[in-house]
Amino acid sequence: MSQHQLATCDATPSAQVLRHDERGVTTLTLNRPDNYNALSAEMLTALEDALASLQDEHDLHAVVIAAEGRAFCAGHDLHEMRELGNEDDYRQLFAHCSRVMQQIQECPVPVIARVQGVATAAGCQLVASCDMAVAARSSRFAVSGINVGLFCSTPAVALTRSVSPKRAAEMLYTGEFIDANTALDWGLINRVAEDNSLDEELSTLLDSLRAKSRVALTTGKALLSRQRTLPLGQAYAFAGEVMASNMMAEDVSEGIDAFINKRAPNWQHR
Amino acid sequence: MSQHQLATCDATPSAQVLRHDERGVTTLTLNRPDNYNALSAEMLTALEDALASLQDEHDLHAVVIAAEGRAFCAGHDLHEMRELGNEDDYRQLFAHCSRVMQQIQECPVPVIARVQGVATAAGCQLVASCDMAVAARSSRFAVSGINVGLFCSTPAVALTRSVSPKRAAEMLYTGEFIDANTALDWGLINRVAEDNSLDEELSTLLDSLRAKSRVALTTGKALLSRQRTLPLGQAYAFAGEVMASNMMAEDVSEGIDAFINKRAPNWQHR
Amino acid sequence: MSQHQLATCDATPSAQVLRHDERGVTTLTLNRPDNYNALSAEMLTALEDALASLQDEHDLHAVVIAAEGRAFCAGHDLHEMRELGNEDDYRQLFAHCSRVMQQIQECPVPVIARVQGVATAAGCQLVASCDMAVAARSSRFAVSGINVGLFCSTPAVALTRSVSPKRAAEMLYTGEFIDANTALDWGLINRVAEDNSLDEELSTLLDSLRAKSRVALTTGKALLSRQRTLPLGQAYAFAGEVMASNMMAEDVSEGIDAFINKRAPNWQHR
Repeated sequence: MSQHQLATCDATPSAQVLRHDERGVTTLTLNRPDNYNALSAEMLTALEDALASLQDEHDLHAVVIAAEGRAFCAGHDLHEMRELGNEDDYRQLFAHCSRVMQQIQECPVPVIARVQGVATAAGCQLVASCDMAVAARSSRFAVSGINVGLFCSTPAVALTRSVSPKRAAEMLYTGEFIDANTALDWGLINRVAEDNSLDEELSTLLDSLRAKSRVALTTGKALLSRQRTLPLGQAYAFAGEVMASNMMAEDVSEGIDAFINKRAPNWQHR
Repeated sequence: MSQHQLATCDATPSAQVLRHDERGVTTLTLNRPDNYNALSAEMLTALEDALASLQDEHDLHAVVIAAEGRAFCAGHDLHEMRELGNEDDYRQLFAHCSRVMQQIQECPVPVIARVQGVATAAGCQLVASCDMAVAARSSRFAVSGINVGLFCSTPAVALTRSVSPKRAAEMLYTGEFIDANTALDWGLINRVAEDNSLDEELSTLLDSLRAKSRVALTTGKALLSRQRTLPLGQAYAFAGEVMASNMMAEDVSEGIDAFINKRAPNWQHR
Repeated sequence: MSQHQLATCDATPSAQVLRHDERGVTTLTLNRPDNYNALSAEMLTALEDALASLQDEHDLHAVVIAAEGRAFCAGHDLHEMRELGNEDDYRQLFAHCSRVMQQIQECPVPVIARVQGVATAAGCQLVASCDMAVAARSSRFAVSGINVGLFCSTPAVALTRSVSPKRAAEMLYTGEFIDANTALDWGLINRVAEDNSLDEELSTLLDSLRAKSRVALTTGKALLSRQRTLPLGQAYAFAGEVMASNMMAEDVSEGIDAFINKRAPNWQHR
């Protein structure tokens, strides 16, 4: 993210998450670079509020979760966690964090992680929870709680739904880093860019999403995770209803007409 | 598929799907090459009837879904879809198509896609729905409905059960093509052949299936998708019953005897 | 496994499975090398007893399932199976084997397969059932029951939960071998070592697990498979509880303190 872009950011009530809107894409930037963007309670609340506010954005095509500084996100804030007194406090903290991760699923449009540096523990969970992820060549990923005696149980929920079982197990039990190429190979991320062209690679993906009808993007987002755990017959019944309803959108008449006549579509819902 | 083979095809009542039987393998060929084998209502019905008729074939070892011309299948017929009036018509169309996709699961033996050219939208779903797939080097795969404003909701059901979540999401949200090597790497297909040796590669796989006992093939086909969504303990209980029943087949006594005596088995159910 | 290590093994009541304990790691070695370590009823019982006894080991960090001789495991003992009379006998045999496979999930710590030579049928299932697997470069994997007319139904339960659907289908329907590199690429195993450095590679992984707090390892093991089939919200609720409880362990205070002060942790539960 360039200096210029930062200069135009609107801060949310907390400065721990910056918000920047540009041509249908909202970027939420974790902004605790001196703390490796650790997910403090304040940052989780700021993320929660920012994500909640996107439900009412009617021209949104995609959300980016980015991070300031040299790291993407180092997970929970260990200093802050140490201050908490009892099991109930921890229960609330993990429930809070889990709510934010699930908000990503409930966001009306695709959410893309923009990853540089390290993404560890709940930071790696954040990448796993996003719909897509673009990462710098030098980025690295780990669920490293086990190194401090704390198994990454909530990160495991997202990770085991993103990569295959033995790979998730290896990451969770050893706490070791995998590099960006391995993360790409395992399907944890979608694209790897050279460090100095990360924003270029991200822009290519965002421009592809900007060119889509918003009706189609929101239809897909509402469908994908909900159908995943249904038995096949029920998943098809649900998806068939969703798709018939999608067909009634004016954008589809326009899209099919444009396709048949080999011209660019002119979306109502752009 | 050679000219000669086509010449010996029996057409189903609709000429939109050709049927060819050869030594325990039935090939169903989508036959609308001038329309990129788009899945018209007539073609879906022809596929449905052809697949239904295979339930009674007692010497079947495998089914191939192939396609005439330069494309495998471009999904639904957009011209035909445009003619449909209301949401109920679309609901029925997608239910029809979903039924055919699920019939592939209910087919008594493995179903293999033979893919050349493009497989898009419901055409890509068809590949994802088959048990295995062999594809030409130059083939390409996309779920491109989003380009006309129509999210590929029913194709997503099959695709998300075939490749990992972030890869399915990227294909569905961007609508972009992946090439055959990528499809192989992601597990969407099983084997890639040079364009001019696609049938040779397919034959190798088919000959492997022809050499198997039909009892074992049908046992496996009836088991695989049904056990997939069960909890582990239930899946094992079910599979244990199935396997004990399979053991009682004469082919298994013969197979084990042949294995121990290092000779080729002589199946009753070939 | 060196001669020396074998010399120090304690045999379980059955000599068909050897047990060796070394610094928090218990190795169970299948010991029917002249029969490719086929899973006789006696060996299954020996494995079951050995795995059951590990529930009470309070300094265990990992379990290794290894094998004597040139093969890892060739699955069920076909000679023994042939002696069984009726369907009920087979039902009991497969239920027995399935219980052992599920015991691996219920083992309190991670279970790692150490694979050389061939792992076929229930032997391949054993690899798929382990949490992680390290294999020699020349090792090979197949679910080959179909070659004797017997579809690998119970192995399919483990295999379809380990690799993607089309790859599992290809292995199960063709019965063909995949090599170690392919198994690594498909996520069936975690690491491939040159044949003469298999134990070295395994030791690296084991030393990583030995360095972890046992509280974290057992927390993870109890969580991972149980959360996998839950809907996302329920999985997070469960994992959040587990993680809050894990936080109360003294090892976590120690681990976080060690991390913050850049020193090695001194686990209570090592």
